[in-house]
Amino acid sequence: MELIIHSGTVITMKDGRVIRDGAVVVEGQAIVDVGETSEILRKYPRGYERINARGKVVVPGLINTHQHAAMSLLRGYADDLPLQEWLEKWIWPIEGHMTAHDIYVGALLTAVESALGGTTTVNTMYHYTPDENEAKAFVDVGLRAVVGHVCFSWRKEGDKNALEDLAKNWHNKADGLVRVSVDPHAPYTVDPEYMRELKELCGELNEKYGSEKAPIIWHVHVAETSDEPEKIRRAFNKNLKGGVMEYLDSLGVLDSRVVAAHCVALTDNDIAVMKLRGVKASHNPISNLKLASGISPVPKMLEQGVTVSLGTDSPCSNNSADMFEVMKVAALLHKGVNRNPTLISAAQVLNMATVEGARALSWDSEIGSIEVGKKADLAIIGFVKPHLCPVHNEVSHLVYAAKATDVETVIVNGKIVVENRQLKTVKGERVMKMAEKAKTRLLERLKSNVK
Amino acid sequence: MELIIHSGTVITMKDGRVIRDGAVVVEGQAIVDVGETSEILRKYPRGYERINARGKVVVPGLINTHQHAAMSLLRGYADDLPLQEWLEKWIWPIEGHMTAHDIYVGALLTAVESALGGTTTVNTMYHYTPDENEAKAFVDVGLRAVVGHVCFSWRKEGDKNALEDLAKNWHNKADGLVRVSVDPHAPYTVDPEYMRELKELCGELNEKYGSEKAPIIWHVHVAETSDEPEKIRRAFNKNLKGGVMEYLDSLGVLDSRVVAAHCVALTDNDIAVMKLRGVKASHNPISNLKLASGISPVPKMLEQGVTVSLGTDSPCSNNSADMFEVMKVAALLHKGVNRNPTLISAAQVLNMATVEGARALSWDSEIGSIEVGKKADLAIIGFVKPHLCPVHNEVSHLVYAAKATDVETVIVNGKIVVENRQLKTVKGERVMKMAEKAKTRLLERLKSNVK
Repeated sequence: MELIIHSGTVITMKDGRVIRDGAVVVEGQAIVDVGETSEILRKYPRGYERINARGKVVVPGLINTHQHAAMSLLRGYADDLPLQEWLEKWIWPIEGHMTAHDIYVGALLTAVESALGGTTTVNTMYHYTPDENEAKAFVDVGLRAVVGHVCFSWRKEGDKNALEDLAKNWHNKADGLVRVSVDPHAPYTVDPEYMRELKELCGELNEKYGSEKAPIIWHVHVAETSDEPEKIRRAFNKNLKGGVMEYLDSLGVLDSRVVAAHCVALTDNDIAVMKLRGVKASHNPISNLKLASGISPVPKMLEQGVTVSLGTDSPCSNNSADMFEVMKVAALLHKGVNRNPTLISAAQVLNMATVEGARALSWDSEIGSIEVGKKADLAIIGFVKPHLCPVHNEVSHLVYAAKATDVETVIVNGKIVVENRQLKTVKGERVMKMAEKAKTRLLERLKSNVK
Repeated sequence: MELIIHSGTVITMKDGRVIRDGAVVVEGQAIVDVGETSEILRKYPRGYERINARGKVVVPGLINTHQHAAMSLLRGYADDLPLQEWLEKWIWPIEGHMTAHDIYVGALLTAVESALGGTTTVNTMYHYTPDENEAKAFVDVGLRAVVGHVCFSWRKEGDKNALEDLAKNWHNKADGLVRVSVDPHAPYTVDPEYMRELKELCGELNEKYGSEKAPIIWHVHVAETSDEPEKIRRAFNKNLKGGVMEYLDSLGVLDSRVVAAHCVALTDNDIAVMKLRGVKASHNPISNLKLASGISPVPKMLEQGVTVSLGTDSPCSNNSADMFEVMKVAALLHKGVNRNPTLISAAQVLNMATVEGARALSWDSEIGSIEVGKKADLAIIGFVKPHLCPVHNEVSHLVYAAKATDVETVIVNGKIVVENRQLKTVKGERVMKMAEKAKTRLLERLKSNVK
């Protein structure tokens, strides 16, 4: 596809460059030029499809670094409950009845919601199933995704086969839209030995299917709650000397290809370890508040130079896949709890949702900013709206005032996925019907206890 | 107007009644019947305009109990700054250049944004100006409002005249859409003597223009930050023995017609005083976080039986007039900071945004719930959206997943103000152009220091 988006405010997220009457030129999957509209239209006089972005803002597609996409079928199924009751009486029993088709449909719905909200890349951790799965769902919608398979000590053999199958069939597939990750669930559900094995397996899979430019990464929940050391002690009879990140480091599993979701209960040493090893954080403020997990020390991590990206977490603990909401809450929360209104500026938050998101997924050579040579993952946001009026500062508006529904057009890998709020790849109505039907059947199976 | 809204899920907010295939009948300004669609359509076979709400949810219009509506012209003008610098170097200087026309246009824009987001009543505190003002703006958009005039010790005479004028011209006017309030700015900007005078003046104005059913209320910032006692000491050489609410009580100004905005830095005694006097709280979680004011003890107030309603605060400290965002953040925040995921359920939050909002404004005999005899203030929300799919629980979705932009139709006082997301009363495009123009001129006046 050859396309020029012109006459918009282009927020490149590269060296703070904002082009007021700006244009972006796309050829095939890539961005081939960025500049002022007058100059670009002189250089490319004809032949390119054009999108007039007057009154709109063009940003890199948002990057959601922590999801469990399939769980959208459970959105609003159980809220406001104590954590263990929520998990043990509500979430785990119903998840036990989810089929491969449910996983596909749930992920499809999340992909649709994400696309309509300007999110172009999603890092999702769920159970891999060969026939229908999350990877297929994201490809069907035309979104970029890192798709993992979540691993637990209690099913090692199944996990290893699933990971091999996932990597072989999906890593760097679908025009490079999909990458794959190895996902140990958490330090309290994956024993130390298995944690090391999964690191080795990740290395082996990288040798077979990965590359320096397109690596298979590691995606793991770390320090979501402050009782994690106690949970590790109970599960594996292991007394931690320091924090959970230090413990993982003692296992030799941390490096720059690790995305650690949550990072709530971190010690200062944990943060130092993250910096030393290049571990990336996925901050999920909405989920952390809803599940009452605690508040991640984001300002400290940023101060120490740790990469902090943003995630929604699952549609069960959020209950949206809306990165605009996450940006706003991330900007608000740390100011409030630290009694400092200068912490985490709008510009920092937008950086976390784009550039740092790409870095977290080891995908920053291709996505995260609007620059020549990168993949064309773009969101065009309508700014002529009462709630975005008047315009003093576009970046402030993006973080504090814009809504996911302001996203009008979304381009992923050079292809238009959403145009004027209409999906071009799948039919939204059909996906919603599939999801309602899957939900109804799932509740029936749960009720009659048929798997 | 005679209107039947039918075939929707009606969340009445009265005794927890949710009618799945429900209908609401409106005659003139009032709700005259509520029931199941089949029954209602049998009772009212013809003659009524009809709105088919299949796939939609009908709720009482949301009530925003703390705004400074005119300030939308400053949305995104200054963010992420230390509080005193923000106020003294940014907000106050530019506010000093705002004209009556700016106040009208700013309020018009906020009224438009509010209406499009399902908010039907706004309690706003700003400077009253006779010709163009906030009251006129809300009436022009067709929204319900409590419009105040903010009072400071340094301009007593001007304030008293403004209040008299405001009450005379606007209280219970425009088909009862507008009510008026007396708004002492805060305990540290209004000296004790003047605070008492304003209470007396409120009584006098009530005798002249108010009534038991439609009272002129009191709207004041209280305990927004923890240094308020120190500010009071510095301003008036007064050492508080307890909290700020206790101090106000010692002045004899508290009763059930007082809406106290923020209520962040409250002592247990302050909360007891609120309960005793019937003082209503307006909780503004987004603003409190953004300005790093602190976290209001909402669970404690609720536990003690204090009425807690919700507010956005100004478009400068939020930066939206979006009550859906406020609902979500209110539901999240107290869980997170108190490490208790059962605090402030979705149902409680929706109650705060409707029933308790009405109670806070002493307007609960007319608004806040869908019941026979109340005014027809309604929001119809489209639920066939990917981010609201599947539906397990409508109330959960309203608080945790719905967006202001899901609101399709809004009825205030029996009149359709928004229909299928189109404003019926004013032209949104025109209001936005007015606001951009007003902003540009305001910035020019600020730059050249011309008032």
